[in-house]
Amino acid sequence: MDIWEKTIKNINIYSGKVVKLDIETVLLPNNKTADREIVRHPGAVAILPIDNLGYIYFVKQFRKAIDNELLEIPAGKIEHGEDPSQCALRELQEEIGYTSNKLTYITKIYTSPGFADEKIYIFKAEELVKSERIKDDDEFINICRFKPGEAFEMIKNGTITDAKTIVALLSTFKL
Amino acid sequence: MDIWEKTIKNINIYSGKVVKLDIETVLLPNNKTADREIVRHPGAVAILPIDNLGYIYFVKQFRKAIDNELLEIPAGKIEHGEDPSQCALRELQEEIGYTSNKLTYITKIYTSPGFADEKIYIFKAEELVKSERIKDDDEFINICRFKPGEAFEMIKNGTITDAKTIVALLSTFKL
Repeated sequence: MDIWEKTIKNINIYSGKVVKLDIETVLLPNNKTADREIVRHPGAVAILPIDNLGYIYFVKQFRKAIDNELLEIPAGKIEHGEDPSQCALRELQEEIGYTSNKLTYITKIYTSPGFADEKIYIFKAEELVKSERIKDDDEFINICRFKPGEAFEMIKNGTITDAKTIVALLSTFKL
Repeated sequence: MDIWEKTIKNINIYSGKVVKLDIETVLLPNNKTADREIVRHPGAVAILPIDNLGYIYFVKQFRKAIDNELLEIPAGKIEHGEDPSQCALRELQEEIGYTSNKLTYITKIYTSPGFADEKIYIFKAEELVKSERIKDDDEFINICRFKPGEAFEMIKNGTITDAKTIVALLSTFKL
């Protein structure tokens, strides 16, 4: 590959609970150098839960980064060493209190490749079984459900603006 | 809104060319506090360029954050004070060397609301007119074009993994 950027220096600016920030100095194809600001994230999963009546489960929660509530499908960070499908079942239980007997991998996406390495594995969860909701003390989540047609309408009218949620809905039902 | 998180302290860790990193201490609905790591980004646009033959233009470029090449639609950061549609026309010219006589706003998305405030405005660009490609010296981009059916196939088989590109393609053609 002729446009590869080789790292010649890496400075870690910050290492937090969720993200790390690195400044990488890279060698460009024209032999000049450039600095790249890179946010490191452990990766995540997102789950499209569909019940036997065809309803899709969503969570509405406050997102400090955008200082607003956001309607999303259940999702969460991958813990160290965790398999994406295990993570999907864990998050499904934590966020909406269901397990799934039919978890199907849909696709994976890069959310912000210009500045972050976050990769999200997207799953469809069917054959849902009500379970105990083991939630974090500090998580405040409202659960709601919509039929696919309502969800498509909410994408069109700008009510659903979360990238992973749109990708999951349209990849699952429209491809 | 009962689940709002009020900021009680904000520490700026880093301010770079592309991103800033803040740690915000917030007050939760249960009166406990929590720290939120938040990446601030100026926002971006992404453009789905469609020519008179129905081909869609893509760019293939190296993305250091994921240490790999990525197939995306043209996109770029909003400059200070720039209108999203102006930015879309500028990026279209810089990245693929076209202007558009018919720019249509499609939607806006949040790419990583768990840790970043990045918002991307997505446009469709039609009635393309060949123009001079005013590109950055340090940008190395390959341009390619595909019909919608080919692009959908590349989403299905995992060749297209960029979130904004998938949202733009499926929102434009499948909703």
